[in-house]
Amino acid sequence: MTSIGIVGSQGRMGVALAAAAAEAGHGHCGIDKGGNIAKLAASADVLVDFSSPAALEATLDACVAAKKPIVIGTTGLEERHHYLIDDAARDIAVLQTGNTSLGVTLLAHLVREAAARLDPEWDIEILEMHHRNKVDAPSGTALLLGQAAAEGRRIDLVRCSERGRDGVTGARGHGKIGFASLRGGTVAGDHDVIFAGPEEMITLSHRAENRMIFARGAVKAALWLIHQKPGRYTMPQVIGLS
Amino acid sequence: MTSIGIVGSQGRMGVALAAAAAEAGHGHCGIDKGGNIAKLAASADVLVDFSSPAALEATLDACVAAKKPIVIGTTGLEERHHYLIDDAARDIAVLQTGNTSLGVTLLAHLVREAAARLDPEWDIEILEMHHRNKVDAPSGTALLLGQAAAEGRRIDLVRCSERGRDGVTGARGHGKIGFASLRGGTVAGDHDVIFAGPEEMITLSHRAENRMIFARGAVKAALWLIHQKPGRYTMPQVIGLS
Amino acid sequence: MTSIGIVGSQGRMGVALAAAAAEAGHGHCGIDKGGNIAKLAASADVLVDFSSPAALEATLDACVAAKKPIVIGTTGLEERHHYLIDDAARDIAVLQTGNTSLGVTLLAHLVREAAARLDPEWDIEILEMHHRNKVDAPSGTALLLGQAAAEGRRIDLVRCSERGRDGVTGARGHGKIGFASLRGGTVAGDHDVIFAGPEEMITLSHRAENRMIFARGAVKAALWLIHQKPGRYTMPQVIGLS
Amino acid sequence: MTSIGIVGSQGRMGVALAAAAAEAGHGHCGIDKGGNIAKLAASADVLVDFSSPAALEATLDACVAAKKPIVIGTTGLEERHHYLIDDAARDIAVLQTGNTSLGVTLLAHLVREAAARLDPEWDIEILEMHHRNKVDAPSGTALLLGQAAAEGRRIDLVRCSERGRDGVTGARGHGKIGFASLRGGTVAGDHDVIFAGPEEMITLSHRAENRMIFARGAVKAALWLIHQKPGRYTMPQVIGLS
Repeated sequence: MTSIGIVGSQGRMGVALAAAAAEAGHGHCGIDKGGNIAKLAASADVLVDFSSPAALEATLDACVAAKKPIVIGTTGLEERHHYLIDDAARDIAVLQTGNTSLGVTLLAHLVREAAARLDPEWDIEILEMHHRNKVDAPSGTALLLGQAAAEGRRIDLVRCSERGRDGVTGARGHGKIGFASLRGGTVAGDHDVIFAGPEEMITLSHRAENRMIFARGAVKAALWLIHQKPGRYTMPQVIGLS
Repeated sequence: MTSIGIVGSQGRMGVALAAAAAEAGHGHCGIDKGGNIAKLAASADVLVDFSSPAALEATLDACVAAKKPIVIGTTGLEERHHYLIDDAARDIAVLQTGNTSLGVTLLAHLVREAAARLDPEWDIEILEMHHRNKVDAPSGTALLLGQAAAEGRRIDLVRCSERGRDGVTGARGHGKIGFASLRGGTVAGDHDVIFAGPEEMITLSHRAENRMIFARGAVKAALWLIHQKPGRYTMPQVIGLS
Repeated sequence: MTSIGIVGSQGRMGVALAAAAAEAGHGHCGIDKGGNIAKLAASADVLVDFSSPAALEATLDACVAAKKPIVIGTTGLEERHHYLIDDAARDIAVLQTGNTSLGVTLLAHLVREAAARLDPEWDIEILEMHHRNKVDAPSGTALLLGQAAAEGRRIDLVRCSERGRDGVTGARGHGKIGFASLRGGTVAGDHDVIFAGPEEMITLSHRAENRMIFARGAVKAALWLIHQKPGRYTMPQVIGLS
Repeated sequence: MTSIGIVGSQGRMGVALAAAAAEAGHGHCGIDKGGNIAKLAASADVLVDFSSPAALEATLDACVAAKKPIVIGTTGLEERHHYLIDDAARDIAVLQTGNTSLGVTLLAHLVREAAARLDPEWDIEILEMHHRNKVDAPSGTALLLGQAAAEGRRIDLVRCSERGRDGVTGARGHGKIGFASLRGGTVAGDHDVIFAGPEEMITLSHRAENRMIFARGAVKAALWLIHQKPGRYTMPQVIGLS
């Protein structure tokens, strides 16, 4: 039985991570703000951190000292955090990702593949729906899927995005990737990637029923990470995609 | 056999109207730019006009002179066109509408009904998808559906709209009606009205396969209009909704 | 604060009902198998029963003796249970239903309305998806929606159903109502009622994120039932639909 | 300019093929029942046949004699027709397929990939909708997609299918692939392949607006086939998938 060390164990994701570890037949330990991270790193087999960027440096130091791998699902990372992660990855295995869902990880792979195969005359649109309290649009996952589409098509996402259409927009830009966001109710997260061609349409969709899928994917990633050499890893590698 | 007089018979809608009249077992006659509108009004039993606002005054005059009803599906009407229509409606039956599809007409009715019954805690979102060449967003039909939702909820659509979400938008406004637009391929017109409540969601959708549905609805409206007294009518009345 | 008496308070629906009562700012009390139903009926303001048909007679007797209204969401009722309910309804207010979701109740109303307005050339299809462990198909809710469609169209559902299409079926029967069932994963319950006409399609959908919506609707029904005279009531009445 | 020889040029697919050839900037010639197939094979650069199995032998003989490649989209082929095709493929390039749509071909590839990557705890369901006059269920394309899923999962489709659910079915079979069919209106062809996992769902969909997509894909396949050596080919090869 592996012991998964949860950074931020009292938060909503922390509670879900503990449940996902138990569901997979494993144990867990955890700390919250002010807890002893060195002790957690020493006692756990692998750490999972969905807390906040503020404590990331101390957490990475503790993992390196204890030679323990870590899955980082924290959002809002800046460039300097990525440098810290690269540094740590020389000594330990680190997987950092904006989305730990296995379904979304696979979907991104399928989107990249479809975008690479279809002519640019197939217009790409990305639609997402989330609960009424989400404060940013499009969602990070929508952007991740857009990035996969842009990679498949070998274009630059930032220069090719069409976002927030409203008013007299003119015809759709050729080769653009469009984004639209719906907000309402308690929706955990729906994403559609639409390829609209001449008189036919392919849609690749993901629907999350609740946040457990992120916890479950993070636990699967953590269990996989234990067996990897030092280095920086990504979710697609967990399911053998790259 | 009724004879339907088509204003703009060579245009795409004109051709579709002729086909729809034939499909329904009726005849048609028509004119294009520069044609004799008085002669058309005299020989037809009812006129259908999807041409342009420019010729509307002359067309209405001809209908009044010949005492013939008219269905007006022309878009881009201004206030002064509506005054002309009101004037004509003292002498003849006139039905003016932004959407002649029977399906959309019924959908708007269902949307009004649902919006009236559901608590404001059910967030309303309207999504539409059209082909890549459409130049305005949201579509006129999306706005028509939004208006139906606003009426059901007894709120003002203009003040309660949330359009073109992008970036840090903050949480969704309480009681707002959101709009999002997708563009791509050759899609004739998809519309979804979403009511997202606490852990459940109702979606009312319409999908058009091609423009024939607008011609078919206009012909049905024209056949109905022949039997009405002078006055101004709407599509819901054609299917007995008000 | 109203006290809601839960019959079967330890079951999954019982726990959800207690949560829904608390969410609505009300209290609850409850019993399980072997509990004292007379005492529960005496102390609660209204009872809610999602347990099993076996105990229904005793439960109704207790409600009548205590002059307390009751919401019955128990499934698998037979004709004799309906006689017992009719008897009790002479003395107390009783609401019996196969689906307490407010969203499904409204959807059924919209389906009836749409079926009544659309020509029979619009084919009606009902699709449902539920989790992999559901043992019957179509779902009770799909049948309830089919019944609403049949009422709107003034046809008999049993004689007009087309279920389980497979193999060489021949063309679709004119005026039939088709049913199809998907099973998989942990889906709480998706329902689509499709009206497929000539080159256009209207779809009315409901999606449940989890069972809380049934508990929430049952609590709303219970609070409404307290103010009603003796008699037998239905969910549509709770939201003012009939 | 290539000349595409259409076998059955007056049929609905024949007319669509001529339009698709013109759209792609190429010419066509054609024959119907009783026409001179040897002459057609001599004058065309490549043949496309969506007619009937009855004439297949003579058509293949003519192609072999004239050393011209052929795309066969005819349905209802039996084992002996496949032997004839294998024989001809020793001398000429032959592409035989049940679906010439490029979108469906890509979708099948994505389905195979997804089925190979996802654990068997992800239930696979295939849903299709077609117009009211379709006489068989599930559609050939649904079966083609099911076959792709079965290959990805390394199971046998025939033994693992769950079709036409109705009544007391019991829980869903573990590892099964479910099929459901909707019929109505004028729908040209919608297909959804659903992967339903624990609290998340991936759906891969295709929607055809009309039959032109099959003609367009057949023309693209024909133009590609001209450059191939003798042998038997498949649609995925046309878009570089295998």
